[in-house]
Amino acid sequence: MAKIIAINAGSSSLKFQLLNMPEETVLTKGIVERIGMNDSIFTIEVNDEKVKEISDIVDHEVAVKILLEKLTGQGIIDSLDEIEGIGHRVVHGGEKFNDSVLITDEVLQGIEAVSELAPLHNPANIIGIKAFHSVLPNVPAVAVFDTAFHQTMPESSYLYSLPYEYYEKYGIRKYGFHGTSHKYVTERASELLDRPVEQLRLISCHLGNGASIAAIEGGKSIDTSMGFTPLAGVTMGTRSGDVDPALIPYIMEKTGKDAYEVINVLNKESGMLGVTGFSSDLRDIESEAEAGNERAELALEVFTSRIHKYIGSYAASMKGVDAIIFTAGIGENSDVIRERVLEGLEYMGVYWDPSLNKVRGKEAFLNYPHSPVKVIIIPTNEEVMIARDTVRLSQ
Amino acid sequence: MAKIIAINAGSSSLKFQLLNMPEETVLTKGIVERIGMNDSIFTIEVNDEKVKEISDIVDHEVAVKILLEKLTGQGIIDSLDEIEGIGHRVVHGGEKFNDSVLITDEVLQGIEAVSELAPLHNPANIIGIKAFHSVLPNVPAVAVFDTAFHQTMPESSYLYSLPYEYYEKYGIRKYGFHGTSHKYVTERASELLDRPVEQLRLISCHLGNGASIAAIEGGKSIDTSMGFTPLAGVTMGTRSGDVDPALIPYIMEKTGKDAYEVINVLNKESGMLGVTGFSSDLRDIESEAEAGNERAELALEVFTSRIHKYIGSYAASMKGVDAIIFTAGIGENSDVIRERVLEGLEYMGVYWDPSLNKVRGKEAFLNYPHSPVKVIIIPTNEEVMIARDTVRLSQ
Repeated sequence: MAKIIAINAGSSSLKFQLLNMPEETVLTKGIVERIGMNDSIFTIEVNDEKVKEISDIVDHEVAVKILLEKLTGQGIIDSLDEIEGIGHRVVHGGEKFNDSVLITDEVLQGIEAVSELAPLHNPANIIGIKAFHSVLPNVPAVAVFDTAFHQTMPESSYLYSLPYEYYEKYGIRKYGFHGTSHKYVTERASELLDRPVEQLRLISCHLGNGASIAAIEGGKSIDTSMGFTPLAGVTMGTRSGDVDPALIPYIMEKTGKDAYEVINVLNKESGMLGVTGFSSDLRDIESEAEAGNERAELALEVFTSRIHKYIGSYAASMKGVDAIIFTAGIGENSDVIRERVLEGLEYMGVYWDPSLNKVRGKEAFLNYPHSPVKVIIIPTNEEVMIARDTVRLSQ
Repeated sequence: MAKIIAINAGSSSLKFQLLNMPEETVLTKGIVERIGMNDSIFTIEVNDEKVKEISDIVDHEVAVKILLEKLTGQGIIDSLDEIEGIGHRVVHGGEKFNDSVLITDEVLQGIEAVSELAPLHNPANIIGIKAFHSVLPNVPAVAVFDTAFHQTMPESSYLYSLPYEYYEKYGIRKYGFHGTSHKYVTERASELLDRPVEQLRLISCHLGNGASIAAIEGGKSIDTSMGFTPLAGVTMGTRSGDVDPALIPYIMEKTGKDAYEVINVLNKESGMLGVTGFSSDLRDIESEAEAGNERAELALEVFTSRIHKYIGSYAASMKGVDAIIFTAGIGENSDVIRERVLEGLEYMGVYWDPSLNKVRGKEAFLNYPHSPVKVIIIPTNEEVMIARDTVRLSQ
């Protein structure tokens, strides 16, 4: 029985989850926030209760030491020797990494080499890797990439219609993200449908504050809505998704912003926040729409019509679809969004039962039994996916 | 019996066609090129032969005078009094014009007011309008807009997920183009299918050097692939279509270009030219792909897979589709492109007969008789559409 830590490191934060494998049960989880600042916050679940402590945590290495002290001090584990692997979420693996990988010096250099593609995320992930390595140098560590699952896309999907040298020289192509989540629900859908993944054509809708749709054929991602960065694709909480690229200089001219500032607006002030003008939080938007707010209603329609169209386009890519999956915060919890996304897909064989849709946050089939296309809610679990890959690659 | 001139004015050119209405027969057509330069070229068809003359034509007004002299001088018409209307193609009508319109001073001001949205095209169109007005002040003139047909799009289709004030203050939204062509094939499809347009859900694929897809429900455009500008949507001859907007600053940084220069690359050095590295001309690309050139094959796959996906997404938008239409240079003439676009759409009821696909430039059904979704080639005719609207609005 192995205990595995799944880590998601940010520039000033460290999310962790300790899992028992292969049972996939969670022993504890928590987050360290404000690392490197005053009044850092350490939060950990002990006996189903959140314990919070404030202190000054100067860097990630100290955060790791405190975490490990808590694990033994609180009796969650008896000895650090029980920890048999550490799985690190890494946002960008470029074209170098098409699967999770045991971290060596060479791998670490590889992750650094593609950092330019995710300048806000990879450096933070690397800090987390190094911190654990210095405290637990003998425990195998595995990198699990957000992009890896999409490395199976054919060139005709990932290549932009730009001068080819932009791809060769600058690595400009579609990478896609949320791969760990799309992979998890793919494996789970295969189990729930009791069919080998090789026979399945799936459309996975990962709908959270970030949102992406993936077309998964025979277990392999063949297309996804996010692109070179997580800005592309469908409308999100604060991200615009796809817009006419010619708008960038037009907005620059109109607002006096430079190109980076415009992209910042597209990332942080757009999406449903931009359309409503008041919130990126779907719960607020749904209740305002319910109360008759037209802009809230419009935001719901914009959000869901884009997802609906991506489902249509990916069904075309795979010559039909066997199951549509909803996952992540919105996908798992919002019956309103699922209903709008699914409406009118009978022409492609989607027959779903509204009475089954009144469900939140748990696995459920929404389709009528006779529906050729199944519709499934599958709560995502990236930590379990990270732990699985860590076990697979560290043994 | 009315004679109508259909005009498409560029900054240094004037394309014309003289039609007999309501017969819709072409009496003559031609083009004046290099207006305002030395050695301007005047080309006109007389008795099915092209007559070409070189002279210095200082401005559009002189070009119009020469054109009218030719029409009577060559005996194409007996008197200028026979011309009962002039129809002007105008690229951008903004939100102001949702239909063609009889040109008045106020209308002309309206066209000028939206010129900012099409700074390369509307001013040239206005020059053409003014030139005809000064030579034939008493002949009714009608403006026919590329954008007008798409003004029926619902707000959830045309609104980008940007800060809402960008729409209110700067007119930033999807406008769509090729409207005159999409409208022409819509009307013609209704005739060919012998069904009222109100009952039809159509997907129109206008595939030329520029390319756009439109979803047309009940005769009204409800969505289209081009956007704020004609850069967005599918891959084109030299245009990129949709790309991750975050690429603009990344390409700026990598190449040292400014934002306008990058958009210029996306408009003029991208698309199939960018992918192949050698040509934007589909005939070259098809023959190179045939000969085993991998980048040519890749360009075909990139081009057709994008169109295929748009068809899928618009079928989803309309809850199914009654007919798919191919038009414009590539759509009318390339069986290779049509085959790749149509492959694998059986799941949505498209059953087509490859033996019917070996046809170029004429109206034809490609579907098996029993296919729920019809597939039709319809050569577009924007001049006839302009002439029809000119007759309708000038009488």
